[in-house]
Formats: sequence, C-alpha cells, structure tokens
Amino acid sequence: MKILVINAGSSSLKYQLMDSASHDVLAKGLCERIGIDGRLTHKVPSKDLKKEFEIPMPTHSEAIASVLDALVSPEHGVIKDVKEIDAVGHRVVHGGEKFAASALITDDVMKALEECIPLAPLHNPANITGIQACQKVMPGVPMVAVFDTAFHQTMPEKAYLYALPYEYYEKDKVRRYGFHGTSHRYVTARAAAMLGKKAEDVKIITCHLGNGSSVAAVDGGKSVDTSMGFTPLAGLPMGTRSGDLDAGILEYLMTKYGMDIKEMLNILNKKSGVLGISGVSSDFRDLEDAAKGGNHRAELALESFQYNVKKLIGAYAAAMGGVDAIVFTAGVGENDAATRMAVASGLEFMGVKMDAEANNTRGKETVISAADSKVKVLLIPTDEELMIATDTAEIVGKH
Amino acid sequence: MKILVINAGSSSLKYQLMDSASHDVLAKGLCERIGIDGRLTHKVPSKDLKKEFEIPMPTHSEAIASVLDALVSPEHGVIKDVKEIDAVGHRVVHGGEKFAASALITDDVMKALEECIPLAPLHNPANITGIQACQKVMPGVPMVAVFDTAFHQTMPEKAYLYALPYEYYEKDKVRRYGFHGTSHRYVTARAAAMLGKKAEDVKIITCHLGNGSSVAAVDGGKSVDTSMGFTPLAGLPMGTRSGDLDAGILEYLMTKYGMDIKEMLNILNKKSGVLGISGVSSDFRDLEDAAKGGNHRAELALESFQYNVKKLIGAYAAAMGGVDAIVFTAGVGENDAATRMAVASGLEFMGVKMDAEANNTRGKETVISAADSKVKVLLIPTDEELMIATDTAEIVGKH
Repeated sequence: MKILVINAGSSSLKYQLMDSASHDVLAKGLCERIGIDGRLTHKVPSKDLKKEFEIPMPTHSEAIASVLDALVSPEHGVIKDVKEIDAVGHRVVHGGEKFAASALITDDVMKALEECIPLAPLHNPANITGIQACQKVMPGVPMVAVFDTAFHQTMPEKAYLYALPYEYYEKDKVRRYGFHGTSHRYVTARAAAMLGKKAEDVKIITCHLGNGSSVAAVDGGKSVDTSMGFTPLAGLPMGTRSGDLDAGILEYLMTKYGMDIKEMLNILNKKSGVLGISGVSSDFRDLEDAAKGGNHRAELALESFQYNVKKLIGAYAAAMGGVDAIVFTAGVGENDAATRMAVASGLEFMGVKMDAEANNTRGKETVISAADSKVKVLLIPTDEELMIATDTAEIVGKH
Repeated sequence: MKILVINAGSSSLKYQLMDSASHDVLAKGLCERIGIDGRLTHKVPSKDLKKEFEIPMPTHSEAIASVLDALVSPEHGVIKDVKEIDAVGHRVVHGGEKFAASALITDDVMKALEECIPLAPLHNPANITGIQACQKVMPGVPMVAVFDTAFHQTMPEKAYLYALPYEYYEKDKVRRYGFHGTSHRYVTARAAAMLGKKAEDVKIITCHLGNGSSVAAVDGGKSVDTSMGFTPLAGLPMGTRSGDLDAGILEYLMTKYGMDIKEMLNILNKKSGVLGISGVSSDFRDLEDAAKGGNHRAELALESFQYNVKKLIGAYAAAMGGVDAIVFTAGVGENDAATRMAVASGLEFMGVKMDAEANNTRGKETVISAADSKVKVLLIPTDEELMIATDTAEIVGKH
C-alpha cells in the first residue's frame, strides 16, 4: 500500500509517502510558514531530488493540496494520481487515556481528539487541523491516528500516578502519559529482532535522546515506565527543557521575580535544559565543540544530561528487576558516540560492557556492547514514519 | 562532656542532654505552644520518668529557661547546676553553600545563618531564634551549629545543578542542597562500622524513610547525590509532600483552578504524597491497615512510595557504578518490614538478596540481607541528636 504520513504542527506540516510493504520512502517534505505565506520543500530520495517552492498556504488545506500537487507533478512527482494513495496516517501527540493503540479516524475518534485538547493545547489542535485539511482535499481516503502517548498506556498505576490529591487524576486526568511512544515502540521491535528474540521475552530500556528526550522501561514488549510525564517538559534535561523539578524552585523564582506561571513555564520550556546550563546552545554538537574548547559550562551541560540518562537506566533496571538490552536512538542517541559511552560507562555492575570500537559509529543498527556483555547495548535509528505507515496499512487493511 | 542538643521550630523546641562520651541521654523533652501559652514535656530515661508542665513561654527564651529549670530541678533534674552543661549543639536546617561541616557559632556564623534565610524561610528563622534564646540564658557557653544540608555539600556539579538558566544558580543560589544530612551521615558511619570497613572504602545508599523521606548516594563516605533538592519538597513522594514533579502540572492546575503559586505549593506540601494518593492518612501504619482492609488507594500509595524508593536505589547504584550496602533508617525505614522488603525485592540483578526472617525486626541495628547477598542491606536506627552532640563536643574540644 502507498501510505501518506502526515505530522502537522501549528504552522508546519511534514509528510512522507511510503510503500508500506517495501518500506521505501517515495517522497517526503515539509510545508512551512502556513498561515503566514507558505513554503514547500519536496524531496524524492530515489532521484536525489530536492525542490523548494513558494506557495501561498493560508491554511493547512492549501498546504496539503500543495503536497498532493507535488506528489503527482509530472516533473518531480512520484505517483500519477492522488487515488494511488491508499490511506493517510496522522501523527497525533495526545490520545489521553482513550487510546492505547492507533485508531481508524471516525467522527467518534475526532470527538475524542477534541476532548484531549486540554491535555495538549499546543499540539492536538494542529494535529486535528491537519486531519481535517486532509479529509477536505482527499475525501473518502481512510485515515489513521497514531498517538505519541498510546504505547505508554500499559504503565501500571504505581508508575503513572503522581503523589497528588487523587481527585486531580480522577477529575482532571493529571497523570504520567509519556511521549515519543511511536519511537519507543519502533526501536523495541527492532531490538527484539536484533536480539533474535520475541519482544515478550525481553526487558529493554529505550533511550530516545534528541532535542526532546525520554527513556522508557519496556518489559515484555510493554512500556512499564517512562520519563516524560503529564507533559513533554518532564523527565530528563533536554535541549531547552528543564525536566523534572522541585516545585519549591518555581515558588522561589516566581515570588522573587514577580513572574506568573506562564512566564515561568516559558523559561522552563525554552530557556532551560542544556541551553540553560551552558548558555551556549541546545545542540549537542555545539556543546561538544565548546567543551573541547574549554568551556566548562558546556561540558557541565553534557555531563548533567549524560548523568541523568545513566540514573534513569539504573532506575528502570531496578523497576523491571533487571534489563536485557539498552537501546540508543534519535538525533543524539544515534549520532553521539561520546554521549552513549558516557552514559553506559560505569554500569558494569549490572552487566553492561561497551565495545568502544563498535560504538564509534552513527546512524545504523549496530550492537555497540562487547561480545561478552550480559546486557546488550544497541544503536537503532528510529523511524516513526515507518511505524505510522505500518500501523495505518494494518488498520486500513483490516477494515 | 555534657552537651545540650537543641532543635528549635517556630513554636516548638526539642532538647536532649547527652553525655558525649558515654552516649547516654540524661534527659530529653519538648517545649510546645511557644508564643501561645507554653507546655513542657520532660523525660529522664534512666528513671523512666515523664513530667508535663504548663509554663508561660511568650518567646523561645522562656522555653529555654524552663528547660534549664527542669534539668537542674531537685525532683526531676539530672544536673545540679547549669554550669555542668559544657556546650550546646543546635540543629540548623539550611547552611546554603557556606557550610560543608558543623561550625562553632560566632557573630560571623550568625550573620551567615541570616543570609541563608531566603533559602529556608520557615526553618532558619526558628533555628536562629533558638540560638539567640540560648545565648541569652546561657551566656558564655560555647555553641555549635549542625546543618541538615552540610553533608551533601560534597555533591559534584552534575548532581546538584538544575537544568535551568545558569544565572539562577549564580545569582539566586538555586541548586540541589539536600536535607537529612545529619541522619545520612550518621547511618553511613554506622554502616561502615557494621561492615567492618572504612567509610572511604564503600559505596552506600542510605534510605531515610519517614514522614519526610530522602535517599542519598554516599561514595567513599561522601554524599554524591540525594533526592531532596532546593527544598525538602523534592524527590520521593512523602507523607504529605508530592516529591519531584512535571512543572507542566502546576501550570495546568493553577490555570484551571485559578490558584496562585502559594496555594499550589501548600497543596504540594500538605495535601499530596501518600496522603493525597490514598485519601486515608500520611501515616504508613494507617495505610497498611487500610490496604489490608482492601482499600485500593491505600495499597497504591504504599506501592507508589516503595516503587519510587526502588527506582532511586537503581539510579544511585548507576551513579556510583555499583553499591556495597543499602541502609534503611528513620520511622518507616526502621519499623516497616513490609516496605523494606518491597523496596529491596527484585534487585537480585544487582546483587541484593534479602533475608525475610532477619528483616522481620524493627528499631535495632541488623543485617537484613541474606548471608550470600553481594550487597549488604542494613537496618540502622538513626540518631541525629547523638551526631549533633558528637560534632559539638569535637568542635568545642578543639577550640
């Protein structure tokens, strides 16, 4: 099947046309500045082709229409007719407690997505807009929603419940949801395949380390804990996000500087993390360059990040009563050998032994632990689009 | 030496008169309702004597005076003259970054304590008042300040720095301080003694579990990480405190319910923790009774607490590259065999093997791991007063 994968943001829209059987990416690209003016970047990997266009995109509908035009264009297109697209898979950030798996989009599902807006006020409206725009320009094509939160719905209560008055959970749905679920699920399946085992038979810790980062404990193929929480601000320090905090800090800083909670959250989301510590950048390559140049705070930002990932690995091994494999994925996890080594070093006591030479690689599936390491350490490039396409093909095929 | 140990709160004052050589507690007690009316409870352990008095205590000075009266009383006293008291040791909650050890109280130290008030606005003023009251009624007697934060001043930057804009650390001193330091230090020393080793040679995880709870990673006798943070709200869920949180939750709840940060913090400090989850109690004995009676939320509160302690043990083992001993102390840690067992179960992968029979004890120094457990698990009753008396005798002896 040919599946169009859509990831809609508030003023942007990423797309990828995939063959769900061969896993080939036929075309992919990005609409930007939707609602402002409009720019389309369109790529055809097989032809090494990249085109950029200025196209008015007052709404997401025009953005989707421009994507379809590009896909069927005689010059840089990859299909002859829009009808060749069998289905559309949409990334949706928040499925709340309603969705523990991907779902065929129906009116009821759309209603449920609307109900999740309070939980993801920035993301879900954009995702919904993207779906509605697709429905407008591709009427009758089956569509599937694939949720960032769904994979983590298997967490037990002790892992997802905060130590808050219980009515905040019952009435307001405040709990740990976790995100990056599609990525954690994808690398879990790949890890089991690389180990030659069924996912049901292994305990895996998946480290999705990028500009946003989260770690998950996956026991028998099911997420049993993860570091992001009610929102994607939680857990690890990230590019610009603080991660978990002592709420006493918020009271202290808000009182001292007369900030309200929105101003405070803006700082915690956008000016904190490794950018906040270093004052240099949210990009790990910049930090490594600066650290090599003797910048102590850049070094400290890297150390702090690595140290917190290491602690989470220990915490999740304890949570599962051991671990068979540790997976590194996403931008930093796939490409930053030094960070992987710093994280995994010193874990010999729990059976982790790295292979420095094997670790000196990037972006391809590799066993980076030593041959005699009890715990296997794996580098696995993530592919959320493939996971979305696979889910979509499977669900549409069934209906 | 005879050392008077003082722990002054805003309207209360605990005291203990100790012989620092024999470790005997000569007398101890509590002043309550200072500034309201005043009540003294005075105990002489050797005589199994307990007396209660209504005594006007408009300020801490009258409270201290009533303590001294009780100590020298012909009926229920234990010394003949106040002059027999060689020194006074004061518990002080916050020493900021100024104090990495206990300190003889001088005018400069008093000034430094004042400077730490913004970091502990509820506690340090009461501690200072207690010191000043003592100085007034016992002029010329040397006094020592023993800080809850001091033991954790050895943490490395990567452990104490938050992923916030760096100026909040530089200008505002926002960092992890950690608390319960006197207790973590005491049980560390006892653990090394029980293991027949020097503290310098062992990696220990100390679990101070009470109404307030914290866990510390102690490598070679030095605290390298701990779960409480800038304030004692952080880390584990506690009796009524939430522990670490996703700051996104604060924004969500404050916006939804129109709360300001003070109201929010009041809920996080006083209505959260195991009380918040269970709706039953902050007391673990009540929770266990309720759980046995089939109360699911009480069971969940216990599970959640135990699960978080377990995760911290894994995290700190990873942080130190292994662990030689795990210590349980304080109210819950010393008395709750079921919680100790739940926390330590499932950690066999890192060399922990409990002895269920040995664990079935309370309140006395005991090895509760199996004979062949690679990691020793120890029950050690804490004794912060003894630690304060010991520090005080040592410092006063030197001067």
